[in-house]
Amino acid sequence: METLKALPNDFTFVPFLFIMDLIGTIVFAISGALAAREHKMDIFGMFIIASVTGMGGGTLRDMMIGSTPVFWMKQPIYMVMIAIGASLTFIFREKMLYLRKSLLLFDTIGLGVFTIIGIHKGLAFGLHPAIAIGLGAVTGCFGGAIRDILCNEVPAILHREIYATPCLVGGIVFVLLRSANFENNWVDILTVAVIIVIRLLAVKYHWQLPKIE
Amino acid sequence: METLKALPNDFTFVPFLFIMDLIGTIVFAISGALAAREHKMDIFGMFIIASVTGMGGGTLRDMMIGSTPVFWMKQPIYMVMIAIGASLTFIFREKMLYLRKSLLLFDTIGLGVFTIIGIHKGLAFGLHPAIAIGLGAVTGCFGGAIRDILCNEVPAILHREIYATPCLVGGIVFVLLRSANFENNWVDILTVAVIIVIRLLAVKYHWQLPKIE
Amino acid sequence: METLKALPNDFTFVPFLFIMDLIGTIVFAISGALAAREHKMDIFGMFIIASVTGMGGGTLRDMMIGSTPVFWMKQPIYMVMIAIGASLTFIFREKMLYLRKSLLLFDTIGLGVFTIIGIHKGLAFGLHPAIAIGLGAVTGCFGGAIRDILCNEVPAILHREIYATPCLVGGIVFVLLRSANFENNWVDILTVAVIIVIRLLAVKYHWQLPKIE
Repeated sequence: METLKALPNDFTFVPFLFIMDLIGTIVFAISGALAAREHKMDIFGMFIIASVTGMGGGTLRDMMIGSTPVFWMKQPIYMVMIAIGASLTFIFREKMLYLRKSLLLFDTIGLGVFTIIGIHKGLAFGLHPAIAIGLGAVTGCFGGAIRDILCNEVPAILHREIYATPCLVGGIVFVLLRSANFENNWVDILTVAVIIVIRLLAVKYHWQLPKIE
Repeated sequence: METLKALPNDFTFVPFLFIMDLIGTIVFAISGALAAREHKMDIFGMFIIASVTGMGGGTLRDMMIGSTPVFWMKQPIYMVMIAIGASLTFIFREKMLYLRKSLLLFDTIGLGVFTIIGIHKGLAFGLHPAIAIGLGAVTGCFGGAIRDILCNEVPAILHREIYATPCLVGGIVFVLLRSANFENNWVDILTVAVIIVIRLLAVKYHWQLPKIE
Repeated sequence: METLKALPNDFTFVPFLFIMDLIGTIVFAISGALAAREHKMDIFGMFIIASVTGMGGGTLRDMMIGSTPVFWMKQPIYMVMIAIGASLTFIFREKMLYLRKSLLLFDTIGLGVFTIIGIHKGLAFGLHPAIAIGLGAVTGCFGGAIRDILCNEVPAILHREIYATPCLVGGIVFVLLRSANFENNWVDILTVAVIIVIRLLAVKYHWQLPKIE
């Protein structure tokens, strides 16, 4: 595992990942704003839920590894992404419902990107690869979990959707490819692709993890 | 914006703010203890809810910017304030209901003070003024949000009360006055006053943010 | 209070406490997995709830004092303990219900151990002993609180069980014995014993803190 090389801590260095991260933030913000709408919140509540969904996973990640101030405090562009996502949802609130299918795609892209960024950041902080994979799953999944808690629901990741499993599988693929000395950017792209494909298949064919009777 | 000067990290330096902060902590503790009473918790639960309401926003703020150990761990006087607030609520539990109006006033003072302290602390950690305003809103609002989550309710800031909007307006006033080179203490006092006035007017005249249909 | 000596930050140094901590983690993981089963979650949800219950209190503790990356990120063995606890619950899910009484015992052992570890860690970070006791209670109690929040219930510590009170009493015993220059290991053992005995008696005789009318 000594071949695992850490990325520099500042992800603006890696334009591809950074752009994907911004897109993921917008998409998660939209998913949060849609939830706020379902719960008939006011526009400020919508903005809060959008922020929490789009940046909550990364915030928890940064607090747990001690990368403070957390990422969006150092790069105000993330707040701009949240504002864009929330505004889009507000402006196109009539049409958003018809967009659900494309939203699922974007949401899944966000999941994949957030996961890979969490893994990279964990490795950059010297964590064991297995722990870094867990950190990736936290980054990808906890924004949605906090959104559900704020809306007073049992988080969907706990009982309804194949959500975290693709992150874990993707994380294992990532570590295997890295150990095999694949080139960095390709490893990232392949990992994100694995996560996206598994999740989309899972949703399409209604894969579910077994319930505990 | 280079004219923004940061306060020293230790707010005990600024007696006015520090005293206001202690008062805000007591008042928020009372509001938490009242919520615990409504939910028929035991006296220990009351103490926990009082702590979370009075110190939760600042704790989240400190964890996010990396000012650790968080403030109340370095200054035990905050725990004393919580104990005072919870005890007052317990002792005067009969009369507290008639005090609601004055409580609203104190609660609003607490909101204003917590916000300005969050902004100062954000600037002291080198954050962009827009982010510092957001940090102020987190400091002022999240104690109440965590209180509501613990009581298994959708947080009031998301749907019921004009709560965070005064913080944001106050924050903008703060940055404008600072940029205009106003004297520090006056900026603080004016900001807190703006927050208090807007919130009290909002409550009196039932201002509400538009719901998302 | 100057006689209070801090433990080294890395608790693997103290084999007795470390082993107890691992056992506490397994037991809390089991209690989390059982809650997941009651709420009919899938096996991944079970693993998450087990993690949160077993490591949530310590994670919050580490984020609040700034001991980052948090403990389980530096020592992957904690994740192994979670996996063991969740797997045991899954494999013996038929028999677990009959084991409730022994589970209460283990759960209580976990509470005692987590509390003492939180206190030690607080002192190691230079906190006032009263604050360190509070940190011990957070370490012991908040895993269960987050579990209940995720399951969309009002946390049991707030209204149902004598849970945090034994931690506080144990913490006071700890500080008194330390001030009296008792030998370290004996202080730890006695503190854990006090916590366990009080809690078991409280459960057996249905002790309850008074409700606020």
